[in-house]
Amino acid sequence: MYRFQNDYNEIAHPAVMQAITDTIGQRYDGYGMDKLCQKAAELIKQRINQPDADLHFFNGGTITNLTAISHFLRPYQAVISVSTGHIATHETGAIESTGHKIIPVVSADGKLSPELLMPIMAEHNDEHWVKPKLVYITNSTEIGTVYRKAELIALREYCDKHNLWLYLDGARLASGLMSTQSDLTIEDIATLTDAFYIGGTKIGAMSAETLVITHPDLKTDFRFNLKQKGGLQAKGWLLGAQFYALFQDDLYFKLGQHINDMAGQLVDFFVKQGFEFLAPPESNQIFVILPSSLADKLTKQFVFHRVLLENPQLSCLRLCTSWSTTQEDIDGFKEIFLELVLKAE
Amino acid sequence: MYRFQNDYNEIAHPAVMQAITDTIGQRYDGYGMDKLCQKAAELIKQRINQPDADLHFFNGGTITNLTAISHFLRPYQAVISVSTGHIATHETGAIESTGHKIIPVVSADGKLSPELLMPIMAEHNDEHWVKPKLVYITNSTEIGTVYRKAELIALREYCDKHNLWLYLDGARLASGLMSTQSDLTIEDIATLTDAFYIGGTKIGAMSAETLVITHPDLKTDFRFNLKQKGGLQAKGWLLGAQFYALFQDDLYFKLGQHINDMAGQLVDFFVKQGFEFLAPPESNQIFVILPSSLADKLTKQFVFHRVLLENPQLSCLRLCTSWSTTQEDIDGFKEIFLELVLKAE
Amino acid sequence: MYRFQNDYNEIAHPAVMQAITDTIGQRYDGYGMDKLCQKAAELIKQRINQPDADLHFFNGGTITNLTAISHFLRPYQAVISVSTGHIATHETGAIESTGHKIIPVVSADGKLSPELLMPIMAEHNDEHWVKPKLVYITNSTEIGTVYRKAELIALREYCDKHNLWLYLDGARLASGLMSTQSDLTIEDIATLTDAFYIGGTKIGAMSAETLVITHPDLKTDFRFNLKQKGGLQAKGWLLGAQFYALFQDDLYFKLGQHINDMAGQLVDFFVKQGFEFLAPPESNQIFVILPSSLADKLTKQFVFHRVLLENPQLSCLRLCTSWSTTQEDIDGFKEIFLELVLKAE
Amino acid sequence: MYRFQNDYNEIAHPAVMQAITDTIGQRYDGYGMDKLCQKAAELIKQRINQPDADLHFFNGGTITNLTAISHFLRPYQAVISVSTGHIATHETGAIESTGHKIIPVVSADGKLSPELLMPIMAEHNDEHWVKPKLVYITNSTEIGTVYRKAELIALREYCDKHNLWLYLDGARLASGLMSTQSDLTIEDIATLTDAFYIGGTKIGAMSAETLVITHPDLKTDFRFNLKQKGGLQAKGWLLGAQFYALFQDDLYFKLGQHINDMAGQLVDFFVKQGFEFLAPPESNQIFVILPSSLADKLTKQFVFHRVLLENPQLSCLRLCTSWSTTQEDIDGFKEIFLELVLKAE
Repeated sequence: MYRFQNDYNEIAHPAVMQAITDTIGQRYDGYGMDKLCQKAAELIKQRINQPDADLHFFNGGTITNLTAISHFLRPYQAVISVSTGHIATHETGAIESTGHKIIPVVSADGKLSPELLMPIMAEHNDEHWVKPKLVYITNSTEIGTVYRKAELIALREYCDKHNLWLYLDGARLASGLMSTQSDLTIEDIATLTDAFYIGGTKIGAMSAETLVITHPDLKTDFRFNLKQKGGLQAKGWLLGAQFYALFQDDLYFKLGQHINDMAGQLVDFFVKQGFEFLAPPESNQIFVILPSSLADKLTKQFVFHRVLLENPQLSCLRLCTSWSTTQEDIDGFKEIFLELVLKAE
Repeated sequence: MYRFQNDYNEIAHPAVMQAITDTIGQRYDGYGMDKLCQKAAELIKQRINQPDADLHFFNGGTITNLTAISHFLRPYQAVISVSTGHIATHETGAIESTGHKIIPVVSADGKLSPELLMPIMAEHNDEHWVKPKLVYITNSTEIGTVYRKAELIALREYCDKHNLWLYLDGARLASGLMSTQSDLTIEDIATLTDAFYIGGTKIGAMSAETLVITHPDLKTDFRFNLKQKGGLQAKGWLLGAQFYALFQDDLYFKLGQHINDMAGQLVDFFVKQGFEFLAPPESNQIFVILPSSLADKLTKQFVFHRVLLENPQLSCLRLCTSWSTTQEDIDGFKEIFLELVLKAE
Repeated sequence: MYRFQNDYNEIAHPAVMQAITDTIGQRYDGYGMDKLCQKAAELIKQRINQPDADLHFFNGGTITNLTAISHFLRPYQAVISVSTGHIATHETGAIESTGHKIIPVVSADGKLSPELLMPIMAEHNDEHWVKPKLVYITNSTEIGTVYRKAELIALREYCDKHNLWLYLDGARLASGLMSTQSDLTIEDIATLTDAFYIGGTKIGAMSAETLVITHPDLKTDFRFNLKQKGGLQAKGWLLGAQFYALFQDDLYFKLGQHINDMAGQLVDFFVKQGFEFLAPPESNQIFVILPSSLADKLTKQFVFHRVLLENPQLSCLRLCTSWSTTQEDIDGFKEIFLELVLKAE
Repeated sequence: MYRFQNDYNEIAHPAVMQAITDTIGQRYDGYGMDKLCQKAAELIKQRINQPDADLHFFNGGTITNLTAISHFLRPYQAVISVSTGHIATHETGAIESTGHKIIPVVSADGKLSPELLMPIMAEHNDEHWVKPKLVYITNSTEIGTVYRKAELIALREYCDKHNLWLYLDGARLASGLMSTQSDLTIEDIATLTDAFYIGGTKIGAMSAETLVITHPDLKTDFRFNLKQKGGLQAKGWLLGAQFYALFQDDLYFKLGQHINDMAGQLVDFFVKQGFEFLAPPESNQIFVILPSSLADKLTKQFVFHRVLLENPQLSCLRLCTSWSTTQEDIDGFKEIFLELVLKAE
């Protein structure tokens, strides 16, 4: 049973599918030079209050990150990321493949802060070290936490002071922004970062992400790098269509609200049952810690990502809600879970 | 008017769209580890008579080429391509971006041959030169010609003798194979190359290509490189669905037949009118040479790719048919063309 | 005063200089295809008891490491190194520049072990992670410790079991092997690793390192990569000449003995004075921990590399002996040091 | 017999050797931060009349070219070079290894001109092509010709107009500047290019090249790239010492004069004998065309580089003079040559 396995195992939200099928029978200019991409870009730029931003559509997160970062950096410049950051773990060395080192920083909550950056900047003090130049963060993070506005402002100030780019990977941005713990808006993100991407694939798009570049120095010739790295879609209008649908009537944010609500019910349930979490469960990814015997039984009925813990008696399971998660999914899970707990006693 | 501009400005053939929309409401494993990809792979392997081939689905041609070639080569090994080859021109240095030189060979008909390879191999004779290791060909070629079986066999033999990989970019393979000039089958392609890709995007797929690796030495760990280069789709089943539709009842080949038929009518028409071509018009891309004044008028009514010629009095326009080209499109074009010719007189 | 700053601020040992100046007036084939390189290679192969090894001469450590590692790995394969490893810190991202991730491992003594490798191998379990493939170690390490034979055998066995290459950076191999703590011979190193380099620049060569490749799979076409990465010297015989001198009458090992003896006197002195070390002082690099006030005074008279410590009251200075360090240097340092201590009281 | 084989098979000019051995017993700061490098840089900057230039010392040509070009370009930017250019042929894909395409231009005389650049710039007109950004030239060229001042000014103007960097590889700059055909000075080169390198290895240095960066935009952080690519010498003062010697009393230019004078005698001799050349023999490399039978005999007595010609009856041999070529070498060659001719008749 796939429910809660991840947030990308169903094709797309009906509104997105409609936008795609609406293009049947139409002909478009290739490579994103079409009217749908233009409309989508205008809509997003208005929503994020960045009329001068440059937007580029991609069909996946890894290709977005590697194209953006390789465009922003000179050969000897490096990225700073938490050691659990997506580019530092689950992208098979995509950033290093473009020649850049990722400097990993251990962080308990999956977030970066000036305090964590300071020793890195102090250490990298001459040409025998790579030059740290780009701070990579994710929101929500890989372990389900979210940034507060004050935290992002502090990072921005630190970056300004040390001449660093601030780039946010928003693969799960909708969930991050709509977290009950978040006081950030997408306008804030756009103002406080130099570039970020709005993830679509994990929140109702078929396969689409939007890179937003706000800093003028990062914009030049971006489409050359987009083409070179293999990310420029011949039928680019399909990406525009998806994002136009997602940003109509704030659907993107409503879906973020939905997945967080569904996840919140699971959190409440686990708290009530007395279970703890790997990190504060603030978004649509919950990392609950269970007795391994119970986790084993659960994984016979559901497919989960499992995080290794040092104590073999305990297991950490990731539960992930998606735009298609229903109240029945939640209630059904609870029921099965309680049955398994009862049997175990 | 987009008719004849290119073969990728419409979403997808109805059968492909149906296959995609059939997945609505279903949940699939991510990253191509699903049943649809498996079914599509089985179907294709059967059709090409290569039960042991490894198949990988991509969503575009450039990412396919760069991932494949960077996987097949060691750092100092180079690719040999005609100077008009897609990777040598229209991929913004994607192959070089992965560290490999492309050795360009001037070829009148857009094809490679042992005769053209010989001086390259003779010249690159020690470690001060890159080591030529992969022969890159396209079928149909970028200028609309197609390989004969004897030509491909000769290349294969040359490659065997000189320890070279033979890789075929099949962005327009359907058109190439179904050319009236072609005596090649897809089974031949699979037998005679070490790897090739079956292009879908330009022949009715929404956005999909299938890389086929037949040589065992090239298969190892391919998915690592696929992920690293950004080509591994989270919702991989969408790619499988498209190819399953295209290889049902040989739809792929029927569409190839159709685009060639439509193009053939245009060829006959131009020949009758006394015009010549940049290269023999053997596939769905026709490069017709017209008086520049006539070409100017045509481009007010149609969008074409235009090839620069040395003589400014003449212009070369590319006409490209697609799976959605209709008899009305052809007839309409002829009518408008004749009107323009008449007015000019 | 440069004494103890590092082991590469003097041109070369007299025997090496003699070997170089002996070539005045002679003409040699270029690019290492000369008789001096051949003689040096034969001498070293005999000494390390590896008649079939491939040897390549370089003029510096970073170019040696990046050329070797980029030759040994496929694009998605990664290096495992302690986080203090030279390639992970002081080579400005040279390895990442060739496309490969370095997986850093925290190690108290600067050494790797199966215990430290295990969690890395467990975590990197599919194609979403880089594939760990090469274990990079240094001997002596960057913090002055040395490997024991049992430790290296354990690493070799672990590498065999997990299909990993074992590569040793021997920038300070002479000091490592001649440590009073070492039971390893250079024959052991050659037997237990797949490739290693014998550092010359830091032990009496003018500027020369010798890469030794013992595993047959790593040898193919190495000179192509050597040329491509810029490491192939036109006047290669100069490198051969230096190593021929160093391996005549075991000069290399005698110099290693000398620098360790000199360093040992400093260690004894500091121990007697009651000071502690960052790591066990087992080679020619000593990292002594001093009150910061004393460290400040010392650095007015000597040039040292200084390691940042968390406690600002304490400072760690690196003292490094070289082939040209004399008994007078040692005695003079002690004298000045004692004077500073006295004044401080 | 090595005479005339190349210009890098002898260690170094006596003045250079003296400068190197003068450093015996001295201690220097590492990595080029020493006084000898500073003095050499000052001397050269004064001589080329560029007080604000940045100078970096390397120990070979390929590492100089790859470090410079990879520093000057963004990932999607390409180099334009004649197809016989050193980076396009004899550097084993070093530039492509750093990710950049070289666009080769066929040129009869080994030189680039606005006329040859125009079609390249016209063709590369959007993001589907690499962006030509750096014009790479060599002086003297690989086929022995030299640039005139008017030619270089024309290139500079074209580059300014098209926003291209102009970079000159001066591996044989001394010979190029001192050619009887040259009206260029080193001050002209410094003024008309954005960066260039002064080759030392082929004109009396042991192993040293000096990169000169005059355009301010190309200077930033260069030492980071120098270290990353493996080119930063620990004992950098050795490079400074060599160039300080070469630029004392214009020795560099005097040696250039000498090698050209020696070559000129050979040219006069061949002309008198009625032989022709592959290209105008304007520098220390002469490419003379001989009957293959005669060439065969000559290569039994001398080691030459041989260029393949289409007509198998004819062979092209490269004769190369060096700082150590003597009048006796010239006279001896003539004598042997005439004997062989006589015998052949």
